[in-house]
Amino acid sequence: MTKAQRFLQSFMMHRSVLPELVSKLSDKDLTYTPWEGALSTRDLVWHMLTSSYGFTKAAATGTFERSREKPDFQNVEDLQKAVQEFTDKTVALIDSMPDERVDAMVDMTAIFGTEVSAGTLLQTMRDHEIHHKGQLFTYARLVGVDSVPMFIKRG
Amino acid sequence: MTKAQRFLQSFMMHRSVLPELVSKLSDKDLTYTPWEGALSTRDLVWHMLTSSYGFTKAAATGTFERSREKPDFQNVEDLQKAVQEFTDKTVALIDSMPDERVDAMVDMTAIFGTEVSAGTLLQTMRDHEIHHKGQLFTYARLVGVDSVPMFIKRG
Repeated sequence: MTKAQRFLQSFMMHRSVLPELVSKLSDKDLTYTPWEGALSTRDLVWHMLTSSYGFTKAAATGTFERSREKPDFQNVEDLQKAVQEFTDKTVALIDSMPDERVDAMVDMTAIFGTEVSAGTLLQTMRDHEIHHKGQLFTYARLVGVDSVPMFIKRG
Repeated sequence: MTKAQRFLQSFMMHRSVLPELVSKLSDKDLTYTPWEGALSTRDLVWHMLTSSYGFTKAAATGTFERSREKPDFQNVEDLQKAVQEFTDKTVALIDSMPDERVDAMVDMTAIFGTEVSAGTLLQTMRDHEIHHKGQLFTYARLVGVDSVPMFIKRG
């Protein structure tokens, strides 16, 4: 198993929770914003999906690009399709990374003001995912979901 | 540097955010609960402090004990003292762990239904901290804090 494949297992412990958590939401919850100026539920999920994919792509290719697109998901089914699509392409990128790539440096000056190793970038991506997933659990409770999954899913 | 000391750096990237985040709160925010049955702000912070310390103690000593005590903090100053006290003793335990200890197994049947290595337990502790810190950021926004720190503090 490569370093990236070991990392993938630790990332999927968290990403695998997302479909179940999203399945607890109703279509009307997608535009919910808990305070003025907050990301809506759908935008919070979109931020998780695109950030994790963007950081992974930077780690895997050495080039960081911000995502610009932001679809206005009207229902949970469409949001779940995006979760699946982004998870698949994020997993494929991580799975393809040889150890030399994980140890290589990536220019993240635009965001962190410095270079970081691809491995460090993947860890930051994972931390960012857990942070926002924690927020999404709170959103779910606030819209009235009374039973949420564990925050970690073990394979 | 030992394995535990490297881990400690990655843990402190998150724990170091807590004093600044808590400093944004007012005394009245400590008993705020965002939904019926939710942990109050003070109880959420207490849960983070005691869980991280409890998991660390289990990792460092091989024995897991649940924390029973739960002080009803009346002001932010007292809560900050607890943050400092628990951070100090958690750091001291991690800092003391030799590599053999990190690789040793810990009986976590009571919680996870299985044994896990002390190193895995520390990682789970860190994930749990990030998860609930994400929730605490949401609490802070909900009580009206309009400027929050970055979710990671780099040393």
